This record gives sequence, C-alpha cells and structure tokens, in this order.
Amino acid sequence: MSTPPSRRQPAGAAVLREDVTEAIRAAVFEELAAVGFARMSIEGIARRAGVGKTAVYRRWKSKLSLVLDLLTAFAAQGLPAPATGSLYGDVRALLEVAAHALRHPVASQVIPDLLVEAARHPEIADAIKAALLDGQQGVAALVVRDAVARGELPAGADPDRALDLIVGPLYWRLVVVRTPLPEGYLDDLASAAVAALKA
Amino acid sequence: MSTPPSRRQPAGAAVLREDVTEAIRAAVFEELAAVGFARMSIEGIARRAGVGKTAVYRRWKSKLSLVLDLLTAFAAQGLPAPATGSLYGDVRALLEVAAHALRHPVASQVIPDLLVEAARHPEIADAIKAALLDGQQGVAALVVRDAVARGELPAGADPDRALDLIVGPLYWRLVVVRTPLPEGYLDDLASAAVAALKA
Repeated sequence: MSTPPSRRQPAGAAVLREDVTEAIRAAVFEELAAVGFARMSIEGIARRAGVGKTAVYRRWKSKLSLVLDLLTAFAAQGLPAPATGSLYGDVRALLEVAAHALRHPVASQVIPDLLVEAARHPEIADAIKAALLDGQQGVAALVVRDAVARGELPAGADPDRALDLIVGPLYWRLVVVRTPLPEGYLDDLASAAVAALKA
Repeated sequence: MSTPPSRRQPAGAAVLREDVTEAIRAAVFEELAAVGFARMSIEGIARRAGVGKTAVYRRWKSKLSLVLDLLTAFAAQGLPAPATGSLYGDVRALLEVAAHALRHPVASQVIPDLLVEAARHPEIADAIKAALLDGQQGVAALVVRDAVARGELPAGADPDRALDLIVGPLYWRLVVVRTPLPEGYLDDLASAAVAALKA
C-alpha cells in the first residue's frame, strides 16, 4: 500500500513507521509476560523494542492505552457468531474459541493483570469491558437469538446469563484452578452448558 | 491462654505479641487493597502497622508467606459441607457462601493479584491452590458424594467438574464481568448448575 501523497513522506518512512509500531507491540507482550502490568514501564518497552521513549509516546499516551489497544486487537480475533445451526454446535464452537484464547499468554497473564488494576480503577474496568467483553456479549446475544428463533431457548432468554454459563466454568478451570482439561472435556462442558441454558 | 513458663516472658508480653500480629495482619489487608501485591513491601506493611520491619520478619519470612497465611485463614471460613438434604439446596448454599466470599475485598482484590503472580511462578500457583482450592474441592466432593448416595447424580460423578459448573459462572460474573447480579440470580444459577451437573 502506498502512502497518500498529501503526507509528503517517502514510501520507506511509512514502512519503517509500521515496523516500529509492530516492534513496540511485540515488546509490550514480552514485557507484560516478563514483569506484569504493575511493574511494566514505557522505558522498559522502548528498550526492548530498540526505539526511543518518544517513539512510544508518539503512538500511545500511556501504558494503559497501549495494553488496551493490544487487547482490542486480540478480542477482535475469532469472534464471528458460530451459526452452526444448533445451540449445542454454537456453544461447542464458542468453547473452542474461548479455550484457545484462554490458553494464549495474553489471556493467561495479561487479563489477570488488568483485572487487578480494574479492581482499583473503575476507568480501567470500563476499558477492559469495552475491549474484551462487549465482543463476547455480542456473540452470546447472536447465539441466544438464533436458539430462540429455532425454539431451543424460550423468548426473552438473557444473553449475559448465557455467557456466564458457557464461559464461566471454562474460565474458572483454565485461569483460576489451572488444571489440565480431561479428554473430551469441552464436549462435556458444551452439553452441560446447553442443559443449564435450558433450565 | 498463658505463655509457657519455658519462654520466661511476662504474661503482658504474650498479649502484646498477639496485638502486634493482628496489627500486621490488618496492615497487610490495607496495603494489598491500596497498592496491590506487586507493589506491596514489608517496609510499607510495617509502617502501616506501626511496628519495626523485624517484627514482621520474625513472624513471616516474606510478603508471599504473609499473604498466603491470610488466604488460608480466609479460605477456612464458611466451608462446612452444606448437607441440606438435596443437590439443589447444597448448590444454592455453596453459591451463597461463594457470592459472599467473592464480594469480600480479599477475593475481589487479593485473589486476582495472586493469580497474576501464579501465572509467572508455579510455586505461588501451588500455594494458592493449597490455601484456596483444596477446601472448595473438598466441599464439592462431599456435595457430589451425598448427591450420588441420594441417586441425584450418577456414581462416578467428577467433583472437579461439579466445582467448575457451580462456582465458574458466579466467579466469571462477579470477578471478571463485574456487573450486578439481577434479583433472584443465585436461585436461577443454582437451578442451571443442577441441570448442568445432571447433563
């Protein structure tokens, strides 16, 4: 893609700028995994990315905005409504995506980190909610809508309750208890969630 | 309780020692809530408790052992098996205790803090598991055992799966999503969990 002429920069500058942005993003992941959100600094990120602090501050105003930007990109992955044609199929597909996401370092290290900040700072809680939960709640709403249309769930079924029942047990297991899933566990969890949704 | 004669201390010293211990415990709660585990220091705890650093180190060897000691005391509260005579009753009672615990500052601030550490340090994960999860898994095992004896669950029902299905949705809602519970939500969650357990 070429740089618009109005910016009057050589094409190479745009490429380099993209590289720096990507280097900073990668450095944030590594810093978060290594030291955590509380101990992470813009200095440390810049050092790891091999750029100056101003290169970071030109793109993001704080470490929080940097991390929320990463989270938003992460949350946007793999979130199309499953639309498998059955409630069990949709729930099973959601669990597959969620299990994959919850095993990713972003989820297993960064999300718990941010929940810690969220417990002390309501504005962070709101930002996390917008970055991570809104997408999931949207998908849950579509799954519930389709199930209601098929007659698998009663009209008025609550999408937030559905998300609690589908994702909650898996989150608890993978993020809190952290024990391996037995063979066939996601299939079993999908059956259990469908029974819970219909209860 | 009197001090054993072998220690050769006046009775007043024992009382004072208990007061110091309690002052330190209270200071740890306040420090954790204020600054979080990562930023908390023995110096800060001692200052808040109005004691010297050595008074803390005489009792606990590190901030981690201090926090795990608090967690163990917290986890020991309210964990008798419910034994209400029905699976629904037992699940509803567990949810009541869990909802109370998860709204307590220890749970909403300290547990997420420690999960962050656990993601980086397996030894902390093991200690948290021993302090918090073993008790809950024990109660879940008793609830499942009683339900099997009554014929409400099939023989061989897995207590870990039961805990995932009972506590997971509530943990997700109260600790991750952090939206208020609608009226009657725990009753509804208990019905959903029973249906999931039987699925």
